[in-house]
Amino acid sequence: MTDVADAKLTLFFDFISPYAYVAHTQVHAIAQRTGRRVELVPVLFAAILDAHGQKGPAEIPAKRLYTFKDAFRKAHRHGLGGLVPPPSHPFNPLLALRVASVPMADDARHALVASIFDTAWRRGEAIDGVSGVTAAIERAGLDAKALLEAAGAAENKERLRTHTSEAIARGVFGVPTTDVDGELFWGTDGLEFVEAYLRGDDPLPRDLSWAERPASATRPGSRKA
Amino acid sequence: MTDVADAKLTLFFDFISPYAYVAHTQVHAIAQRTGRRVELVPVLFAAILDAHGQKGPAEIPAKRLYTFKDAFRKAHRHGLGGLVPPPSHPFNPLLALRVASVPMADDARHALVASIFDTAWRRGEAIDGVSGVTAAIERAGLDAKALLEAAGAAENKERLRTHTSEAIARGVFGVPTTDVDGELFWGTDGLEFVEAYLRGDDPLPRDLSWAERPASATRPGSRKA
Repeated sequence: MTDVADAKLTLFFDFISPYAYVAHTQVHAIAQRTGRRVELVPVLFAAILDAHGQKGPAEIPAKRLYTFKDAFRKAHRHGLGGLVPPPSHPFNPLLALRVASVPMADDARHALVASIFDTAWRRGEAIDGVSGVTAAIERAGLDAKALLEAAGAAENKERLRTHTSEAIARGVFGVPTTDVDGELFWGTDGLEFVEAYLRGDDPLPRDLSWAERPASATRPGSRKA
Repeated sequence: MTDVADAKLTLFFDFISPYAYVAHTQVHAIAQRTGRRVELVPVLFAAILDAHGQKGPAEIPAKRLYTFKDAFRKAHRHGLGGLVPPPSHPFNPLLALRVASVPMADDARHALVASIFDTAWRRGEAIDGVSGVTAAIERAGLDAKALLEAAGAAENKERLRTHTSEAIARGVFGVPTTDVDGELFWGTDGLEFVEAYLRGDDPLPRDLSWAERPASATRPGSRKA
């Protein structure tokens, strides 16, 4: 079914997520081993949370510190030596996401996205303003003035909105999400199943009707312990 | 600091969670390898979600099917051959949780909890009513009549509430959570870090001030993509 000439791994990401940083460092090697092209699609995590009426991990006090610790451990396990969070978090990722949404060749986008992620999560520098984003663009060897101008154009802002809406329509509920011909894998731990899936070694039965169980309890009814 | 004679691994769980089922099958081997005692503490996941104003994975339509698929894959990876969900989900887990909260010897509780989990997630049978819970108790070789009676006593209902509140106070925001001397590990993927932590191989720096970044954006301000 898939056009083999354009077989790809699509990574939906937001720079705000340390897990997206970790996943982004792994997806290229997985694509290379499986003969796929990496497609990096910036999306606004906040809009995805809004669409599902969900809280982000940084919005739940007990979960916030845990998320940093867990992402650090996962980054370490993947050979990244941990991570260094940016000076504030959550921060506004819009400018960085818009810059990464500007149409450009795959190689340029891969270098740009890697540089912005590294700036935020390896160098621990702010990417919510022009200066941090400019530095990241320049370290990727790209033209900061041209990219920042293109990023602010109305049609580019619309492009980020469209990519975010399309991700939500495909069933994306968090970042990072890896999309393999419509099959979604969430998070860095979901990413661990991508290669088995591509090899045809996914243990899931084809008939998923077993997973379509009706609910027999909803929260208001089970609230009292 | 820890009393070596009572060094333990505490697993906070709710039978409603397929990830808790998977974690529960792993925690005994980890405890054995690390010389710890397993303490199984039933908690009401719905009350934990309420306390944090959070939605459960089954309450977000796009996440619901994904959760089953992901839990199946994780169960398979841990040698369980997948899982078979109960006939309805979410279901009301209160009776099963109360039965598992009755004071009893560790061995009895371990057998009981394993039997209830197996009934729900390996046999795919309902555990939200007396008949399913009775069958699970009997397969564990315990006295169903006595346990059901003890489960319904006011002080036992209060015990489950207290355990749930204590878990929330310790920072538990989801199930399963493994508590190692106050350090929490969430989910089946968090559980993978427990042994390294106990060996003294946790890569986290002792100084966690790096993780205490202030927020510079909250959602209402970053909602527009």
